[in-house]
Amino acid sequence: GSHVTLFKPGDKVFYAGSLTRPGANSELHVVDERIVGHMPKTLSFAHAAALPLTAITAWELLFERLQIPQKQGEGAHSLLIVGAAGGVGSILTQLARKLTSLKVIGTASRPETESWVNELGAHHVLDHSKPLSEELKRVGLKHVTHVASLTQTEQHLDQLVEALKPQGKLALIDDPKSLDVSKLKRKSLSLHWEFMYTRSMFETEDMIEQHNLLNRVAELIDAGTLKTTFGEHFGTINAENLRRAHALLESGKAKGKIVLEGF
Amino acid sequence: GSHVTLFKPGDKVFYAGSLTRPGANSELHVVDERIVGHMPKTLSFAHAAALPLTAITAWELLFERLQIPQKQGEGAHSLLIVGAAGGVGSILTQLARKLTSLKVIGTASRPETESWVNELGAHHVLDHSKPLSEELKRVGLKHVTHVASLTQTEQHLDQLVEALKPQGKLALIDDPKSLDVSKLKRKSLSLHWEFMYTRSMFETEDMIEQHNLLNRVAELIDAGTLKTTFGEHFGTINAENLRRAHALLESGKAKGKIVLEGF
Repeated sequence: GSHVTLFKPGDKVFYAGSLTRPGANSELHVVDERIVGHMPKTLSFAHAAALPLTAITAWELLFERLQIPQKQGEGAHSLLIVGAAGGVGSILTQLARKLTSLKVIGTASRPETESWVNELGAHHVLDHSKPLSEELKRVGLKHVTHVASLTQTEQHLDQLVEALKPQGKLALIDDPKSLDVSKLKRKSLSLHWEFMYTRSMFETEDMIEQHNLLNRVAELIDAGTLKTTFGEHFGTINAENLRRAHALLESGKAKGKIVLEGF
Repeated sequence: GSHVTLFKPGDKVFYAGSLTRPGANSELHVVDERIVGHMPKTLSFAHAAALPLTAITAWELLFERLQIPQKQGEGAHSLLIVGAAGGVGSILTQLARKLTSLKVIGTASRPETESWVNELGAHHVLDHSKPLSEELKRVGLKHVTHVASLTQTEQHLDQLVEALKPQGKLALIDDPKSLDVSKLKRKSLSLHWEFMYTRSMFETEDMIEQHNLLNRVAELIDAGTLKTTFGEHFGTINAENLRRAHALLESGKAKGKIVLEGF
């Protein structure tokens, strides 16, 4: 409409939408321009589509929730990313390594995901099927200052509290059934929820930050600094392909994001 | 000993000690100088003794956990202090009002504590025995950006989540039996534990910040900016007076800190 100021007709855009609008299996969307960015010029629609949800989540987790400064060099802080080979983990590992001075430690549990996390730039890769404190010791670390727990937080909580330095920070995005947060008290730890639909759902004053960060991600993709989290292309958007895609997601074996395209 | 560099023999000091050392009913203490400050010149030992535990807790909660900047003026952020008339609340309310640009909203539930919180500098005082959202509306506010929940966090949690703006911060110091933190996700809220013994217990690298902040508090007391949290003097340190003091604490009716002095 005529109130749009950030884009002109024909601009190629990418975005992750809002939980208050019809979902992404539709053919046409109406979306608030403040949560839309210019699409990377060097990616196809399919490859660009794999990016917004993971990139917004990872960006907000790292820079808004954990408030890590965007600064190059080698700093004193360290980030343990549990589930670094997944969709959010794949872009978070790159952002942490390329845009901050954090020491980045990712976890994976299969040979192919371990080498994937290495390629994304992690300084160290741990096996999350083994005890974390021993895995940390193996790579010469005693503690980390920050944790991004992207999956199975409930199962890992005791080990994450042990791995964190006093006064450290734990960010999470999953949906644990229960978490005993009293375990965080002795070390004065903090817990940070990241939910990428918060800004659009509540129309927060800083909602336009999603526009800004998507533009920034597109620039970083076009400059070759970041790579997309595209995994597999599953064909056109129809009931059969949606079922196939959901089945793969539910198997827990998907790597990166699954993309469907066209009707 | 000869390793002490921050003090000289005869200096009057104040501190809150460490959980790894014998407690405060003893006649003599050995304490790490990094958690000791110069006592305010304008206070008696009794009045100074009421201060360190509450002041360290309030200071760390405000400036380390919630990371509120020390800046005068009127900012866009607001802090709701639940239990503002208590020991920690009494000094936290003053610090927030005197050293930051926060709008400060304290809660109390009796006429004498309400006027006490007003005197401490709160912009508004709410009655925490009534629904918080209505109390906030009564003083012209819809949301707050920060909450310090100093007591009965479990009981107030739903109301605190409702009162917080999206992306807000909740700090706590008490010991709730259970907290359903999944309630924090929708608004991307964070939860911050403050436990003043963390630094001394783990001998963190920044342990000397307790020395620095106690010195700063002493200066602010001597300058008349802050007042102590002294409540009642209960006489010399003996079994009978300790029993009396503990009975008053357990009654939940104590205002400020109870002090005992001498043997």
